[in-house]
Formats: sequence, C-alpha cells, structure tokens
Amino acid sequence: MRKLIVGVMGPGDGALEADVKNAYQLGALIAGQDWILLSGGRNAGIMDAASKGAKSASGITVGILPAADKSSLSGAVDIPIITGMGSARNSINVLTSDVVVACGSGAGTASEVALAIKAEKNVILLNFTEKGIDFFLSLNDKNIFVASDPYAVIDIIKKITC
Amino acid sequence: MRKLIVGVMGPGDGALEADVKNAYQLGALIAGQDWILLSGGRNAGIMDAASKGAKSASGITVGILPAADKSSLSGAVDIPIITGMGSARNSINVLTSDVVVACGSGAGTASEVALAIKAEKNVILLNFTEKGIDFFLSLNDKNIFVASDPYAVIDIIKKITC
Amino acid sequence: MRKLIVGVMGPGDGALEADVKNAYQLGALIAGQDWILLSGGRNAGIMDAASKGAKSASGITVGILPAADKSSLSGAVDIPIITGMGSARNSINVLTSDVVVACGSGAGTASEVALAIKAEKNVILLNFTEKGIDFFLSLNDKNIFVASDPYAVIDIIKKITC
Amino acid sequence: MRKLIVGVMGPGDGALEADVKNAYQLGALIAGQDWILLSGGRNAGIMDAASKGAKSASGITVGILPAADKSSLSGAVDIPIITGMGSARNSINVLTSDVVVACGSGAGTASEVALAIKAEKNVILLNFTEKGIDFFLSLNDKNIFVASDPYAVIDIIKKITC
Repeated sequence: MRKLIVGVMGPGDGALEADVKNAYQLGALIAGQDWILLSGGRNAGIMDAASKGAKSASGITVGILPAADKSSLSGAVDIPIITGMGSARNSINVLTSDVVVACGSGAGTASEVALAIKAEKNVILLNFTEKGIDFFLSLNDKNIFVASDPYAVIDIIKKITC
Repeated sequence: MRKLIVGVMGPGDGALEADVKNAYQLGALIAGQDWILLSGGRNAGIMDAASKGAKSASGITVGILPAADKSSLSGAVDIPIITGMGSARNSINVLTSDVVVACGSGAGTASEVALAIKAEKNVILLNFTEKGIDFFLSLNDKNIFVASDPYAVIDIIKKITC
Repeated sequence: MRKLIVGVMGPGDGALEADVKNAYQLGALIAGQDWILLSGGRNAGIMDAASKGAKSASGITVGILPAADKSSLSGAVDIPIITGMGSARNSINVLTSDVVVACGSGAGTASEVALAIKAEKNVILLNFTEKGIDFFLSLNDKNIFVASDPYAVIDIIKKITC
Repeated sequence: MRKLIVGVMGPGDGALEADVKNAYQLGALIAGQDWILLSGGRNAGIMDAASKGAKSASGITVGILPAADKSSLSGAVDIPIITGMGSARNSINVLTSDVVVACGSGAGTASEVALAIKAEKNVILLNFTEKGIDFFLSLNDKNIFVASDPYAVIDIIKKITC
C-alpha cells in the first residue's frame, strides 16, 4: 500500500520562530507515522524545518520546487521535484497531498489553503491567525480542521484518513 | 502603447446574482476605458458576465481556460488561452493582469487574491465578505483596495495606474 | 465568430536570418487574413519577427511568455500572457493555437511540434530541416504539412480550416 | 547524499512489446544501482513497465501524473505527483530527472527529448528510431547518447554522472 502523503505548507523567509518549531516537530511526527512529508522544497522557513524534522526521524521527504533548478533546495529533501513554474506549483502541492497542513500564515500559504478547499482536500490549520480561520471556515466548514499543536494535527489526520 | 489588462476574478457556477450584475457592469466599464478584460474564460458566473459586459461595450476579452479544450468557453471571449492546467492557471490569471479585481468570494477566487498578493499585484475587492477583507488586509495592507461598486473599481484603477 | 489563432513557433536568439524573414512575412500574411498571431512572446528571433510582421499589417498579436514578468517581452505583442512557467508554457502555445506553424528548427520548437502532434493539432513545417520533416512524418502523417514559403502556409491553413 | 533520479520516458498505450520489455529491465537495473526511477506515472506502456521493474528490485518509484487525480496511476508508483497539467507536466519530468532515457518513440516522448535538449540535460535514446536519432543529433550532438539495450544505458549513466 502506498504511504500517505502529508503536505506541510507555510511561509519561507518570513516564517515566525514558533511556526518553524512547530514545523520541525510536525515533520518528525509525520515521519514517525511512516507517512511521507511533502513541502514546497526550499531551504527556508516552514519547508526547510518540516523536512529537517522528518529526516531527524528517518522519514521520506518530497519537495516541490518553484524554481527550474536545485539552487534553492533544502538539504533535507530526498526527492526534489523541479517544476520551474513559480507559484503555479502550489496547485501541485495541494493535488499531491492526501492531507494539507498550513503551518503559519502568509500569502503563498493562503493560496494553498484556498486551492485545497477548491480541490476538496482536507486542510488542517496549525497555529493559524483568527482572521484566517474565520475566513476559510466561511468558505467551507466541512473539510477544514483547526489544530493548536503538532500532536493535534496527527490525531486529526488519523481520524480523517481511517 | 499596450492596453491595460484588468483581470476580473470570481466564482463560476455558484456566483451570487448581485456579483454577476456587478461583473457585467464592471466588464462594460473596463471596455469603456479601452482596457482589456481578462477572466477565467468559462461560460459561467463572473467570468461569463464580465466578458459579456465588456463585449456589450465593444471591448476586447481574454479568457484563460483551465480546460484543455474550448468546450467550457464563454461565447463572449475573443481570445481563449487554453492551458489544460486546471487551477494552476490561476497563477497565469494573476501574473497576466495589470490589476486584479475579485468580484464575489469563493475558494478559487481566494486563491487568486492570495497569489496576487504574493506577486505584489494591486488587488481590488469588490463586494467581498467582511471576513475576506479582514483576512487579506492582515496579509498585506498596501496593495489591497476595497470597492463597493463597479464605478469605484474604475476610479481606483485610474489612481493606481497613473 | 472568433478569429482563428495561428501559432508561429521558432527559435529565439539562434534563429537563422532566412527564418526571421519568413516569420516577418508570415506574420504580415496572417494579419492580412484577419487571423490572430500567437507566439512565444519574447523579443528575440521568430517570436519577435512574426509579431512585428503582424503589427505591420495591423494585426492582433498574442505572446505567451515563459517568464514571470514582461522584461523579455517583444514590443510588437499586444496581449502578453505571463505564465512564469518556462518551457511548460509550450503546451499552452500549442493548445491555444488553432494551427501551429514551425518556422525554423530548434529544441524548443521541436518540443512544440511534438506536443502539437500529441494534441492532434494541424502542424505546418516551414523551411524545416529534412531530418526534422522525416522524423515528424514518421510520428504522424495525417496532420503534418510541409511548406516552402509563407504564402504556401496561408494556402494550407485555408484548406484545413475550411 | 541525494539519490540520482533517472527519468524513463516512453509511450503509454501504444508502446511496442520490445520497448515494454526494455523498460521493465531498465527499471530493475536502475533500482539495482540504488537510483530513483521517475516516470510519467500512468498505468500504461513504458511508465508502468519501468515502475514495475524498479519495484521488482525494491527500488523507489516516482510518477509525475498528467491527470488531476490518481485514477490513471500505475500500481507500481510509490510517490505519485499529481499535476493536473496534461502534457505541460512533461517539462517537470525533464527538469526533475538528472538523466532522461527515452525508451521507444512517440509524440509525447519526442516532446520530452526535445525539452531535455532545451534544458541541457543528458538524454539517452534506447531502441529509438533511426529518424529520431538523426533528428535529435542534428539539434545537439553533445548531450545525446544512443543505447541498444538497458545495460548500455546504465553504463552511459555511470560515465556521465561520475
């Protein structure tokens, strides 16, 4: 059976320290479940932290890069997918993930949450802003889940994928 | 000199009647300024209405279709761009538009507003929900403008492009 | 009725002088038929020449740019579509064109001819290499036409679209 | 150190039996080298055979699907990347592969060889038609290699990546 692919999305350079810590821990927990960690692949912010966390627990990491080469690739990504498509690759992140977790808020991340809702994917908002939660729940209140810490994310994924 | 391209984004099948009316009027006003109307190209909701409005005033209409053929194309689109890329084409909508107008709210439209903020485009929210306005202004408060009717949209575009 | 969109594909910087001349003349002839000229949009080689030719005859020109901004845009393009997708935009060039004309040979152009065959589009090879003609005819011998000059291209388009 | 990613491209439904056998054997040999096998991901032709071969030797398989869901996915793909982009994903196949192997000829495969030449990737043509070899060597004679069987492919990859 194929392993579950969990996409962890979040800001790159402007990521908050609390979100980076969450992403690292979440990556480790995802790997601990023998799930595959998917991220945006860059060596910055949430993408890098989640990938490093997953590798700390011997997980498999996939990174969907916006660039056309590996110059911006996180060293913790096992399988870099080179799209050369900029933010259009956000759609691939979402379609490829069995579950999407947004870890911290930003414009790119917001686009991924919105695309995930459009694609009828399950989305988990981790440490998201109140305004973001209010808005996305107003678009869809069935497939969106709110989590306050990485353990809660894992519990939610187990529930919705069983 | 190249004509300004104004992208009007909004829901397809689930569009509200008030938003459809706004889109038609906005399309006509955009054409009246000799600007090009860009939309998502489908024969539904805001895309279709804005294109029809622009044609009613003899404007030029471009439609960036998600599908790989013209079966879903609005009859009011002069120049259909066939992407075959589904929602990944939302990134093209945004990059191609000199100004992005969101006319009504939905998940696809929200992804376009978020991508526009990420790409540092000017975005005008027309008849948008309070929760959406609050959220997007929390992401960026420089390039986002709020309009209550199509005339206000035109005024804002004139100001920011002069 | 929507105007026919004719895509003229060919090398950028390495284009041969004979192909550049053909592209300019072909662009003018396409505009003379009241068809829309589509190209890869850049200010180089065949793309630029075909667009300039079309503008010399007051045609409409669409350019599907690989870049994420307009810095490489031909000054003769009326409607720039900004994809930010590099060579992945070759698929959009092909899907959007009602007929594809390859004007001169190169790797990017070869990918467009191949994608056009895959998408079952009509393809006209203008001043193409013998080896290229032999290869593409071996892939498909129904939708591929060989032309020796721009006038022959126009004649073929008229036949296959009537 | 990241594992080498070898992309094996080839026809889907119309694949020749000899090419399917080659693809299976090549997939197994790639896995035997501890390299990652990348394919177009579908449950047909070369993509399916190469993935099955790699799994027969306990390799890791990545499939870059053109569709927006997994309905056409090969059962031998470990990591499906869902692009929803049709043939535009051919560009991702090529950019993501450290080496591209074309196993049998067809329009889609030809587009990938051409895109690989454009991206300056090393390309190996396995059991390719004479006309195809002649044409692609006329476009580029530095990065294209011709192989007559799967073992020769492995030897070439070892040489060009050492």
